[in-house]
Amino acid sequence: MTQPQRIEADVVVVGAGLSGMIAARTVLEAGLVPVVLEADERVGGRILTEEAIAGVPLDLGAQWIGDTHHRMFALAAELGVETYPQYDVGETSYDLVGTGVLRENDFHDRFGDELVALEHVLRHLDELAAEVPPDAPWQAPHAAEWDAITAGAWYDTQGLSVVARTLLEICTVGILAVPTAEVSFLHLLFTIQTCGVTSELFAESEGGAQTTRFVGGTTEIPRRLAALIADHIVVEAPVQTIEHSPDGVVVRCRGGLVASGRHVVVAISPVLAGRIMYDPPLSGIRDQLTQRMPNGSAMKAFFVYDSPFWREDGLNGQLISDVGPARMSNDTCIPGDDHGVILLFLEGDEARTAGRLPEAERREALTAELVRHFGSRAAHPEYYVDGEWSDRQWTRGCYNANMGPHVWTKYGSALSEPIGVVHWASTDTATYWSAYMEGAVEAGERAAREVIDALLR
Amino acid sequence: MTQPQRIEADVVVVGAGLSGMIAARTVLEAGLVPVVLEADERVGGRILTEEAIAGVPLDLGAQWIGDTHHRMFALAAELGVETYPQYDVGETSYDLVGTGVLRENDFHDRFGDELVALEHVLRHLDELAAEVPPDAPWQAPHAAEWDAITAGAWYDTQGLSVVARTLLEICTVGILAVPTAEVSFLHLLFTIQTCGVTSELFAESEGGAQTTRFVGGTTEIPRRLAALIADHIVVEAPVQTIEHSPDGVVVRCRGGLVASGRHVVVAISPVLAGRIMYDPPLSGIRDQLTQRMPNGSAMKAFFVYDSPFWREDGLNGQLISDVGPARMSNDTCIPGDDHGVILLFLEGDEARTAGRLPEAERREALTAELVRHFGSRAAHPEYYVDGEWSDRQWTRGCYNANMGPHVWTKYGSALSEPIGVVHWASTDTATYWSAYMEGAVEAGERAAREVIDALLR
Repeated sequence: MTQPQRIEADVVVVGAGLSGMIAARTVLEAGLVPVVLEADERVGGRILTEEAIAGVPLDLGAQWIGDTHHRMFALAAELGVETYPQYDVGETSYDLVGTGVLRENDFHDRFGDELVALEHVLRHLDELAAEVPPDAPWQAPHAAEWDAITAGAWYDTQGLSVVARTLLEICTVGILAVPTAEVSFLHLLFTIQTCGVTSELFAESEGGAQTTRFVGGTTEIPRRLAALIADHIVVEAPVQTIEHSPDGVVVRCRGGLVASGRHVVVAISPVLAGRIMYDPPLSGIRDQLTQRMPNGSAMKAFFVYDSPFWREDGLNGQLISDVGPARMSNDTCIPGDDHGVILLFLEGDEARTAGRLPEAERREALTAELVRHFGSRAAHPEYYVDGEWSDRQWTRGCYNANMGPHVWTKYGSALSEPIGVVHWASTDTATYWSAYMEGAVEAGERAAREVIDALLR
Repeated sequence: MTQPQRIEADVVVVGAGLSGMIAARTVLEAGLVPVVLEADERVGGRILTEEAIAGVPLDLGAQWIGDTHHRMFALAAELGVETYPQYDVGETSYDLVGTGVLRENDFHDRFGDELVALEHVLRHLDELAAEVPPDAPWQAPHAAEWDAITAGAWYDTQGLSVVARTLLEICTVGILAVPTAEVSFLHLLFTIQTCGVTSELFAESEGGAQTTRFVGGTTEIPRRLAALIADHIVVEAPVQTIEHSPDGVVVRCRGGLVASGRHVVVAISPVLAGRIMYDPPLSGIRDQLTQRMPNGSAMKAFFVYDSPFWREDGLNGQLISDVGPARMSNDTCIPGDDHGVILLFLEGDEARTAGRLPEAERREALTAELVRHFGSRAAHPEYYVDGEWSDRQWTRGCYNANMGPHVWTKYGSALSEPIGVVHWASTDTATYWSAYMEGAVEAGERAAREVIDALLR
């Protein structure tokens, strides 16, 4: 990972996140020479693991994969990264709409009818999502109608009780990382469709997108992937300008580095892709698309204890609450290590509000919430760490880019369509598990295939 | 307007639109040395006049001022730019919700009750808008409630007839340049409040924001303003990086130009401001704000005829229609010139849809609409020109930046608040006639005052 001033390659890749590195690795295997330009001093993008306590890697970014993430399971196997199942024994702890803390069985007893009604809404969502072509959502039969309203507005018309509507909001914000009032209903249906069904997405516990974790933390994936293409990665190389023509590309970085190639794969989120200066400039539709895909607001906060004491009480470490600054939590202990690890999620409004408080204040509010749900032992963690992704200069928000009303139908066709020798990757352009690591791999492979087809056909 | 490689100044201004040039002129008058860096090869920003036919300047960008635009009247007087009133004699031509073409009097006779109901809604909007502090909309008593819904959703609950709802949409899109389903209701109320009352904004004819034009075209304003500060403007200098500290700023352009100063005023729309690389990077709230203020979609199309033949038929050259690609038109003849000039507006969805067609196809559809309203003589213009602002690399949309739900309340405080020695201008940051030229001047003056207070207090 050296920093020369001029680099020649066949394919310049912007961004050493998972998508960009997969694109680079794929073109390399096809016999083309890639160079990946990464703005940050590290690879991995939205994957970031901290290991302040030896043996307790904490995934501040992407963490889980699910049973249908075939590309990720294959990648982990190829890279020799072992996986293990998410802990899921015991009851979830609820506190919604003023009930006070209730254990899962009590919550289900008390709100059984409401949960059945919610289940009907989820099945309805599945039916509607099935009509959305994941590679062209704007061609769904009811695309115009669905893209004219927000997910929140549609939810509001479903006749749900307050508790069910609140639960639905929490589960959805847990995916989108913005309130449902900001997201097109068509975008929600697209998201569901790229992932299968709502039960995959919204599963509170078994199944779904969060069944499996990586030994050593998720960072093992980009770390080992980067090792395979180490000669082709340059870090601390923020791309500012892409000059492109049928003859090739010249990519200029802050600091003076210039990389030349025949094609370029831009493997960063759409809003960041829109911040690069293109010469010749891109079309109005492409530019305005990148003005209309803001990244979500998400923050993870980890509490590390000397043991997972909640398990003794029959709790699974999950809370679902509308009281404190976190709406959800997970038991993210490391198998073979004695520590107890609780991960709290702050997403959407909670990330915006609590994420801007001083850390001590935020930690205090989160601690109070944990004590309410898991008892007084939660008051004394050995270690605490959190991180808000919008503050990170080279990411600027998580988990992904969302579309408000009219964006898919008026601009969506410009999302992944190459423009000359300029190609687009990043999970935000995926058609299968978009917004997940699985989508990052799919998009990187797809962009690489476009380049390979153009250069080697 | 030379292009040296290093410039020293007290104040670096990014963007030679009206706001940036006003900021530069204001600091210059206070005894400070500015330098304005303009990406384009011309000054004026969203003001652009074409004069393909001698004596017939066509304003492809900003065109009118209104009676309460005090700063603009004063600026025009100071610069020696004469003004004249917008032509407004005769009837408007309507074609809404399938009625076929109706003259204004017939339209009012037929839909009198609906228009009275619409008037009530406008008065209601005025009352609500009066509660919005223009310099802090997020502090309005009902800010959270109003920012959680779209303007379109609020309109839909007002019990308006289809014709009144359609008319309200057309008038509003004529201001915002995006469909009301994309804009926060709070943002609409803010817009109304910064301009006074809805009658100022939505006036179809007399009064309001469009009473007065400039002799020679609006471009006379930036042209003469630029002449006053010509030694302090550099064109074709696209800013890519702003390095800032309490000690000053270093601003780097594509091509190698470097400008140093003590403060910087960024006088471009928020989304474009967000595309600059800041070192140190800005906060998450500021960055995500710029991800959430997309520019609107607007396009003007001019038809020039040998005479204003519609006037002979008692028509004022205005149409309001939901049939063709244009929702509105204006008679924009030049006093003292014999030509007849009709300006058609394509805004929001119409700009997106028709704006992407080949010019010949778009022109044909617009011609057909003009023939329907103004007769067969409209079929044969001497000259036609149009332009979509999202295609312009250094503007990327008009008329201004809009906010969807939750943006004002969660991010609005970061809109114009300086960050160290970095200040924000452009009409999108104004608190009086935001989105208009009047707002550009107000914002430029305000940013200049911040700098002057800091450097000369």
